[in-house]
Amino acid sequence: MAKVAIMGYGTVGSGVYEIIKDNACRVAENAGEMMETKYILDIRDFDDHPEKHLFTKDVNDIINDDEVSVVAEVMGGLHPAYEFTKSLLLAGKSVVTSNKELVATYGTELLAIAEEKNVNYLFEASVGGGIPVIRPLSRCLAANNITRIAGILNGTTNYILYQMFTNNKSFETALSDAQAKGYAERNPAADIEGHDACRKIAILSSLASGVEVDCEKIATEGIVDITLDDVKCAEAAGGVIKLIGYAEFEDGKVYSHVAPMFIKNENMLSGINDVYNGILITGDAVGDVMFYGAGAGKLPTASAVVADMVDSVIHASRRKIIGWKKPEGDVFADAAAKKFRYLMRCELNSTITEPLTMAECDAMKEKLNAKSAIRVLD
Amino acid sequence: MAKVAIMGYGTVGSGVYEIIKDNACRVAENAGEMMETKYILDIRDFDDHPEKHLFTKDVNDIINDDEVSVVAEVMGGLHPAYEFTKSLLLAGKSVVTSNKELVATYGTELLAIAEEKNVNYLFEASVGGGIPVIRPLSRCLAANNITRIAGILNGTTNYILYQMFTNNKSFETALSDAQAKGYAERNPAADIEGHDACRKIAILSSLASGVEVDCEKIATEGIVDITLDDVKCAEAAGGVIKLIGYAEFEDGKVYSHVAPMFIKNENMLSGINDVYNGILITGDAVGDVMFYGAGAGKLPTASAVVADMVDSVIHASRRKIIGWKKPEGDVFADAAAKKFRYLMRCELNSTITEPLTMAECDAMKEKLNAKSAIRVLD
Repeated sequence: MAKVAIMGYGTVGSGVYEIIKDNACRVAENAGEMMETKYILDIRDFDDHPEKHLFTKDVNDIINDDEVSVVAEVMGGLHPAYEFTKSLLLAGKSVVTSNKELVATYGTELLAIAEEKNVNYLFEASVGGGIPVIRPLSRCLAANNITRIAGILNGTTNYILYQMFTNNKSFETALSDAQAKGYAERNPAADIEGHDACRKIAILSSLASGVEVDCEKIATEGIVDITLDDVKCAEAAGGVIKLIGYAEFEDGKVYSHVAPMFIKNENMLSGINDVYNGILITGDAVGDVMFYGAGAGKLPTASAVVADMVDSVIHASRRKIIGWKKPEGDVFADAAAKKFRYLMRCELNSTITEPLTMAECDAMKEKLNAKSAIRVLD
Repeated sequence: MAKVAIMGYGTVGSGVYEIIKDNACRVAENAGEMMETKYILDIRDFDDHPEKHLFTKDVNDIINDDEVSVVAEVMGGLHPAYEFTKSLLLAGKSVVTSNKELVATYGTELLAIAEEKNVNYLFEASVGGGIPVIRPLSRCLAANNITRIAGILNGTTNYILYQMFTNNKSFETALSDAQAKGYAERNPAADIEGHDACRKIAILSSLASGVEVDCEKIATEGIVDITLDDVKCAEAAGGVIKLIGYAEFEDGKVYSHVAPMFIKNENMLSGINDVYNGILITGDAVGDVMFYGAGAGKLPTASAVVADMVDSVIHASRRKIIGWKKPEGDVFADAAAKKFRYLMRCELNSTITEPLTMAECDAMKEKLNAKSAIRVLD
């Protein structure tokens, strides 16, 4: 019997609790033993909960309980999630998380502590919700040099863009819509300004390259400037606009950005609709592979968290090698030299340019008096 | 240093050799140690090969060499691949394979031997070529009860159907085309009659259910009867026809078939074009996830084989739990009771029926004097 703890009883945390309970047989079959929740940490009271005796407000109850071997951190935010995770790893417990902000910010340090203590720090749920992508990237594609990642990593912005394209809604209306449906938060900045996607592409890039790719240094653009004129222009050019977390790997260097990109209808990513996520990974041997599914939501995300808990139970005595190190030098390629084709929207027509650097793009934009310039995903 | 052997120096085998050589650093990083090919088994002579000293015609060289811990079986066919694999596992070596025929036919026995000897028998490359699907299904979705699998599992038939839809080619012309391009063999029966897809859905179903799903008992229909009239009819109904390996799981029972199915354009599987594969898996927690990529080809398939070799090196002392057992009773659900909607093509028009059993479908077909009836993937 593996005893586990859940930190944070919000949407994902309650999902984790339910899956461990409801899918107990499937979980036990895969873990090799039964799994039981011994603690749930939350600052709030849950007096009506059928297992209210599981709740605690003191993380030390978990840290000091030798019976607990695996902890799910699904609190979100940097603090106190960082301090709690660090203490738990130092106490020799495996921690699994859905907290992309924490993984993108403190992942390198936490992974090093996990390695030192020979425990697991796993984060499948931090990118793509329930879609398996972290493990496939690090294990199934282990024989490939990853050359490129292009992902629709944020469901909220994908929903907004999809509404703009399909129902001709303005950005503002589509955003209100998303908020009404619970897809976007009241303060939607993290989504619509691209920060959420940035954390996720930073995690994927770090995994693919084996060294930390600092999310603070990734040029990040959101979708707030996309207009219905851009939509029309993209449609006329035979494609759609998606917010893409993008990374290219060459000679040990990484080029990465988050930005709206123009995608031709032939590309599989163009068909990722609604709140779904899709991650296209290119390896030098395997070519293109894509992973698709619900990128968020209670049970999808929780199922990825529980899968990591299962893996931690299986690998209790032997760490899984998933992670990255601090780089020795600068990992970023020269962004000023990087070229993309651009979809340029002018007053009466639009054009797709030859590959241009950012400076060349600015010059061309001025020359054509273009209203917008959107990178093309080739 | 991990010493490995490759059995079969055909398309996939030479790809395995090349990847181990060319991507040595990435492989070593992931395996935790360098990997080196010590033997290549093939009945043919390769006197011009730069490492011709690696070649042997006697499997006992590999079986009796204690230094070799992992062997890639990429010979294909049932015999002698079965006998060789069995001997290697019994000798305490891990075996990885791309041989779906062998896994679908003798997998249960070989997995049991691997378990007994505490070694690995891995087969990521047997389904979907380089697309990660076996490992995600068994590990990343470990917290889910899998409810359904629907996959485009055969690139050759997908190419043929895609040509029929996109270029209005007849089945015969599209098949000749596929043969000319090397996508179809001179004797294309295994592909166009659905047997290849059948083996793959049998493997996926066995993994998802945990018990052997016998490929001999899966009703299998190919694409030889699909006409350009069916293509027109499907287009008019807003979708396409794809050869689908299908399985549903309920109450410990499996329903499975291989057949051409009608898929609405909204479904992600409708966008899987050319020789690509796509596998849509539904879990009770995660909902729909899809895996997409090249389902065959030298380097994609070889990259999955090498990833399994890496995993075997990592798990040298501890087996990965991926597999299934012999079932205690009958695992198959009552196929006669299973209902699908059907796209019925009549002389002048077509219709999509209510859900019908096979017997009801036959009756309806007669009543409407329909020319064809194709199951709908809902």
